[in-house]
Amino acid sequence: MEPVKFSKEKVVLDTSLFVNPDVRNDFGDTPTKALEGFLFLAAQIPTLDFYMPSSIFKELLNFIEPEKITGDLLTILHQKSPNKHELFFPSVLLYELVEETRERVNKGLRAAEKAVRGVQKKDEKEIIQELRRQYREALREGIIDSKEDVDLILLAKELNALLVTADQGLIKWAEKFGIRWLLPNKFKDYLLSTIKKAKSAEVTL
Amino acid sequence: MEPVKFSKEKVVLDTSLFVNPDVRNDFGDTPTKALEGFLFLAAQIPTLDFYMPSSIFKELLNFIEPEKITGDLLTILHQKSPNKHELFFPSVLLYELVEETRERVNKGLRAAEKAVRGVQKKDEKEIIQELRRQYREALREGIIDSKEDVDLILLAKELNALLVTADQGLIKWAEKFGIRWLLPNKFKDYLLSTIKKAKSAEVTL
Repeated sequence: MEPVKFSKEKVVLDTSLFVNPDVRNDFGDTPTKALEGFLFLAAQIPTLDFYMPSSIFKELLNFIEPEKITGDLLTILHQKSPNKHELFFPSVLLYELVEETRERVNKGLRAAEKAVRGVQKKDEKEIIQELRRQYREALREGIIDSKEDVDLILLAKELNALLVTADQGLIKWAEKFGIRWLLPNKFKDYLLSTIKKAKSAEVTL
Repeated sequence: MEPVKFSKEKVVLDTSLFVNPDVRNDFGDTPTKALEGFLFLAAQIPTLDFYMPSSIFKELLNFIEPEKITGDLLTILHQKSPNKHELFFPSVLLYELVEETRERVNKGLRAAEKAVRGVQKKDEKEIIQELRRQYREALREGIIDSKEDVDLILLAKELNALLVTADQGLIKWAEKFGIRWLLPNKFKDYLLSTIKKAKSAEVTL
């Protein structure tokens, strides 16, 4: 009898899965435990290959205690940067990025003007806090705004992988690139269901 | 004797050539006269093809008196949008755009915070004027920030054309794309020299 040929599915992980407290509880209540919990499940799934861009992995290292993580990390969670010098993307996306940035820049200026006009009425410290919040919302949220974000999008595209992220900017760009995505709070179910499927395939044989 | 085969060079024009007073004086002292002056020279140059993206041409129409412009405009200055759905660009440029925007966004916030802190000392109106200036400098200057800008870059790339512009953001992106560029204040000399060259080629025959 021939060996079973699994069609290996690729999955690209963002750090939020382990770092964001709203999400990581599925796997463990600290970043280190969440990573261990993920590795424990992932080790049982021969049909999935897990990847993380090196830049994102470096971010993750700031949150975990590496000495507590087993060598499984290295064989299960592959670190790989996208092949950025050979990937091309359609120029319509350049229009979208430029236009969206332009609108956000205008919003940021309006927030700044409002803050200046409000100083007479409120405490300066309070005003600046509010300005920072509004400005961040206008210019950072729901947009790809770091090279780590670009790494995630390009790696998922290059590998034709499923992208696991809670970042709204990344999700929006995943949609532009035709990349499949999954919210981290569905990810444990996804893994468990994959394990079940793999086991029932074994039984069938 | 065979007809001479000119290798036609393509040139893409930004509106600044006709609209910016520092530049257009080479051709005429109003936008309409500058455009007429350009058409007068361009009509004598069979070796150059002139293009303008439709979006930029639309901008130009806001500055000129169309009824004063002869039909030459239509045969000499071609309106063409870039073939944006078939053009691709290297993803390293996406990193550059995202990183540059990120730095600028931080600068914009610092300008806004400075403005809020300055309100006690200076007039609010004056503060807001200064804020707008600094914010524009941080977030607009030296960057491509409109779909018209993207049109110019992509059209010049598609046609392998010389881009005539005074916009520092466009020049920077032209360099990234390997597009040749020329400052508008050199453009009249460029046209006159091309006319001379074309005439001497005729004489040689």
